[in-house]
Amino acid sequence: MTRTIDLAVIAGDGIGQEVVAEGLKVLDAALTDVTVRTTPYDLGAARWHRTGETLTDEDLAAIRQHDAILLGAVGDPGVPSGVLERGLLLRLRFELDHYVNLRPSKLFPGVSTPLAEPGEIDFVVVREGTEGPYVGNGGAIRVGTPHEVANEVSVNTAFGVERVVRDAFARAAARPRKKLTLVHKHNVLVHAGHLWRRTVERVNAEFPDVTVDYLHVDAAMIFLVTNPARFDVIVTDNLFGDIVTDLAAAVTGGIGLAASGNVNPDGTAPSMFEPVHGSAPDIAGQGKADPTATVLSVALLLEHLGLGDAAARVERAVAADIAARGTTPRTTSEVGDALAAAVAEAQPVS
Amino acid sequence: MTRTIDLAVIAGDGIGQEVVAEGLKVLDAALTDVTVRTTPYDLGAARWHRTGETLTDEDLAAIRQHDAILLGAVGDPGVPSGVLERGLLLRLRFELDHYVNLRPSKLFPGVSTPLAEPGEIDFVVVREGTEGPYVGNGGAIRVGTPHEVANEVSVNTAFGVERVVRDAFARAAARPRKKLTLVHKHNVLVHAGHLWRRTVERVNAEFPDVTVDYLHVDAAMIFLVTNPARFDVIVTDNLFGDIVTDLAAAVTGGIGLAASGNVNPDGTAPSMFEPVHGSAPDIAGQGKADPTATVLSVALLLEHLGLGDAAARVERAVAADIAARGTTPRTTSEVGDALAAAVAEAQPVS
Ligand SMILES: CC(C)[C@H](C(=O)O)[C@@H](O)C(=O)O
Ligand SMILES: CC(C)[C@H](C(=O)O)[C@@H](O)C(=O)O
Repeated sequence: MTRTIDLAVIAGDGIGQEVVAEGLKVLDAALTDVTVRTTPYDLGAARWHRTGETLTDEDLAAIRQHDAILLGAVGDPGVPSGVLERGLLLRLRFELDHYVNLRPSKLFPGVSTPLAEPGEIDFVVVREGTEGPYVGNGGAIRVGTPHEVANEVSVNTAFGVERVVRDAFARAAARPRKKLTLVHKHNVLVHAGHLWRRTVERVNAEFPDVTVDYLHVDAAMIFLVTNPARFDVIVTDNLFGDIVTDLAAAVTGGIGLAASGNVNPDGTAPSMFEPVHGSAPDIAGQGKADPTATVLSVALLLEHLGLGDAAARVERAVAADIAARGTTPRTTSEVGDALAAAVAEAQPVS
Repeated sequence: MTRTIDLAVIAGDGIGQEVVAEGLKVLDAALTDVTVRTTPYDLGAARWHRTGETLTDEDLAAIRQHDAILLGAVGDPGVPSGVLERGLLLRLRFELDHYVNLRPSKLFPGVSTPLAEPGEIDFVVVREGTEGPYVGNGGAIRVGTPHEVANEVSVNTAFGVERVVRDAFARAAARPRKKLTLVHKHNVLVHAGHLWRRTVERVNAEFPDVTVDYLHVDAAMIFLVTNPARFDVIVTDNLFGDIVTDLAAAVTGGIGLAASGNVNPDGTAPSMFEPVHGSAPDIAGQGKADPTATVLSVALLLEHLGLGDAAARVERAVAADIAARGTTPRTTSEVGDALAAAVAEAQPVS
């Protein structure tokens, strides 16, 4: 019997549509005994402009039924800041309990990096996805007056920190270097920081072969450009993770290559895979977007669904394609076609 | 009549002592008609180990009487995280209302940078210094239990944001490029972010010749390594400023060169000048520390006290020294002596 993957697809706005089409092409090419059934969800700026809706309870209930979600990018300049972020993207991450926001950073041979001497960069950031300053527990009084006070609250729980820290340790233990770096700012954010620190120390006892170190987020910035090769697995909170991963993407060739998974490791809801980049309205519809980040997100999706061989084929195809890239620009679908062909060729004979 | 500068000196721990000695040497050399009177304050890890005190009310009252403060670095591994940061460094910044945390980033010719194509980097970060997640309004319940909740609160007021934004606009208006970039994360931290955004828009009306743009903090990370030359003046909150300025320091040659001023522009209390680096216990006492960041902090101090000519001489001496640096390492005091000599030579004949 053929296995079926039942995929929710939120292509979204701008280049989201274009890159997701290529991602799906490669996904199909990567699978032989597996059927992919896709259900498109009309979510994002276009939907909001038309209906004023970001994500209804019905949308959410329907999305919950799938095995996984592939998301392109959402947003356009006409939507006020925060509407789609809070109402759609973060709502999905929070409602579906995506507490592991997984962001690998790898410098593929042939990729141009802003660093003069990058070294071998190959690390994974495990960013907490359901707590921290992202919880939306802020508020403001006397808005628009000289007496306005606007607060933002970072919420960190033992439950929430421990589960993501344990996940990060497990990932570190499975990697050759077995090294975990906690990034925080516990000398200033003493309450949250000490919870993170104590948790890492405690969970370390369960993973005695993992070496742990700690960096303040500001010091992490420095190492990410002076010695990114020092990192293996980074675990950090939601906001620091946002910051660290964009810098990590920049030093490994830009967000055109940066993939991410919003993972619910407990399987109580579908996980969601998306490129780190946005909808890039300035280049939308021109076939200029690089679909590689989406294709690498598809690899993370395959890995998450237990299809590690297919994931590896996709990653190898990307690596080979990048290594062979010339200076002639290719269109979005040319890149997608090339990757799909390479992945299909790499099929194991069965 | 000779003007006297009445300086509080907090040399602190580790290399703090060494670099401050050189900073004072250069300060003396830079001034002709001005007498410098220094009062050392015994603050930092050593004091804490001996007495358990970080900064007493008496210390603070005494420090308040000075014209300015020069600080080296404080801390050693024996002091629990947060004790000196909250009890001394941040207490000084908050009590003395250092709402402008000024951090210039300039790539001096001859400095080696991790970037392959750095371009001309010359910008200033105006980091808010008395609000944001640094206020210490966090707390935790059920500490050490599986039900612990640890919160951190970022407090942002119209009063606090407006005064630092106005300062940043004034600095931008005085620079050739007249460009101000707000860095925040208003799509997620909507309450604080929108206060910052609205404030920048409103104050812009008072500085119509300043061009304003906005970057999310994660996008700022990318530009800081791909196109740092795009920045002129950055204004941002306390935590984002901490992160941005360490990255800015890294791309302009490292924290060995990064100067900072904790400025009270209203003059209601003395401003404090300090290198961005820490006490570096690993190299302390060996004459290995680079005093350049402290010397550049002395330049900021001179500028703040209205001694712009002397400040310019110090900066030029540093630039010349850096450009001429060979590969032979010099001791801390050799660098200080060279800078002091160069500054003294550059005296205007009077
Ligand atoms: C769009 C925004 C809400 C989001 C985040 O801050 O998490 C994005 O920057 C990301 O990193 O996925
Ligand atoms: C030591 C610490 C409290 C401080 C900060 O976070 O502001 C330091 O990193 C800095 O940037 O001056």
